[in-house]
Amino acid sequence: MKLVLIRHGESEWNRLNLFTGWTDVDLSDKGREEAKSAGQILKQEGYDFDICYTSYLKRAIHTLNYVLEELDREWLPVKKTFLLNERHYGALQGLNKAETAAKYGEEQVKIWRRSYDIQPPALEKSDERNPQNQVQYRNEKKDQLPLTESLKDTVARVVPYFEEVIKKDMQAGKRIVIVAHGNSLRALVKYFDNLTDDEIVGVNIPTGVPLVYEFDDKFKVVKKYYLGDQAAIEAKMASVANQGKAK
Amino acid sequence: MKLVLIRHGESEWNRLNLFTGWTDVDLSDKGREEAKSAGQILKQEGYDFDICYTSYLKRAIHTLNYVLEELDREWLPVKKTFLLNERHYGALQGLNKAETAAKYGEEQVKIWRRSYDIQPPALEKSDERNPQNQVQYRNEKKDQLPLTESLKDTVARVVPYFEEVIKKDMQAGKRIVIVAHGNSLRALVKYFDNLTDDEIVGVNIPTGVPLVYEFDDKFKVVKKYYLGDQAAIEAKMASVANQGKAK
Repeated sequence: MKLVLIRHGESEWNRLNLFTGWTDVDLSDKGREEAKSAGQILKQEGYDFDICYTSYLKRAIHTLNYVLEELDREWLPVKKTFLLNERHYGALQGLNKAETAAKYGEEQVKIWRRSYDIQPPALEKSDERNPQNQVQYRNEKKDQLPLTESLKDTVARVVPYFEEVIKKDMQAGKRIVIVAHGNSLRALVKYFDNLTDDEIVGVNIPTGVPLVYEFDDKFKVVKKYYLGDQAAIEAKMASVANQGKAK
Repeated sequence: MKLVLIRHGESEWNRLNLFTGWTDVDLSDKGREEAKSAGQILKQEGYDFDICYTSYLKRAIHTLNYVLEELDREWLPVKKTFLLNERHYGALQGLNKAETAAKYGEEQVKIWRRSYDIQPPALEKSDERNPQNQVQYRNEKKDQLPLTESLKDTVARVVPYFEEVIKKDMQAGKRIVIVAHGNSLRALVKYFDNLTDDEIVGVNIPTGVPLVYEFDDKFKVVKKYYLGDQAAIEAKMASVANQGKAK
């Protein structure tokens, strides 16, 4: 069984170095190119799918749309769920990463970005950024919607969805692609690779590069690889790791 | 209960005046503009939806994507089904309408385009245009896939899908938009408006213009109207009616 994970292409706010979380920003021009290139690589390598999963956030949905367009697979079923959204960044959402580092100290920002179980400051309930106040989540159970999340919280949201929904499709023989976010994909990588809490915070998933997992029938990972130019992928991973530094 | 129908924007083959049917051609630049404009009108008029329905054909799917982008509703669930595809045009698919008129006579083309129950020549089983040979329909039951269709056949495919699936969502209080094709939407219009076989062949649905139906709780139509500039809509309907004439 193969599973393909794709982190959405660069967004407008990645480019501006802002904490994004659940803010619904669109892809940048570069992000659109990354998305198309992910689709082209999958096509070259002969990949095909039966079901696509993505989040409620347009940077992931648009990335998937570009991938499907390159694959000429617009007609595939797409399942969208907020459970695959990016980690919720609480009150940091909308702040510049470098400014936040200058204000709270680079070390504190590193803790928020790279610790496993420490949440950033939570949103006020009245905040318009509270998902309970946002139209996008009008049909969701209010107690499932976070005001902030640690990576641990994101794992606790993403992994059960994988186990209860996506895994069942895979066991039924469906070929799956998941287009999601840096931290919702990290949650899956931690789960698949049995990484410790410390190990996962050091993992950087590059944008717009298909990551393939191969499983045996006991769902043990037998192989894992990125598709495409390996040197370019290494360079991308290093650049993600440097985003939190004060400028 | 309100239901919104949208015929996809102009496609590359509408523009070239070719019989399209199930050929999976993309929108033209003009079609993309029509799709965006449909979304903008819906937004201006304050429309919102819970579920979107479309066909397996990219000119409809892309139209829906543009509409959702304008409405900032990319996260809505989208259900795709080949049962909302355009009428299958059999062996005429890919032929120029004016050339076909010159070859078979304008009257014969008018019969194929505008009669209710006469099918165009069927595809050979071995033809690559046979949906049974196309990857898009690999999961469908072969005996459901046509080699040609009259409008009557299209009605017999579309109306049961509406009754069994979409109507139930509406009765559950869901606000629905359907983005589909000239003839799959005609099938619905015939059904909603109780038109005779002769009446429906004279109905022309303009591309990229939201058509709103309002129903009472017995599913009787109480109101029906196009959204947008009414004079421009009239002109569009007249231009569709003229497409079958030899040039």
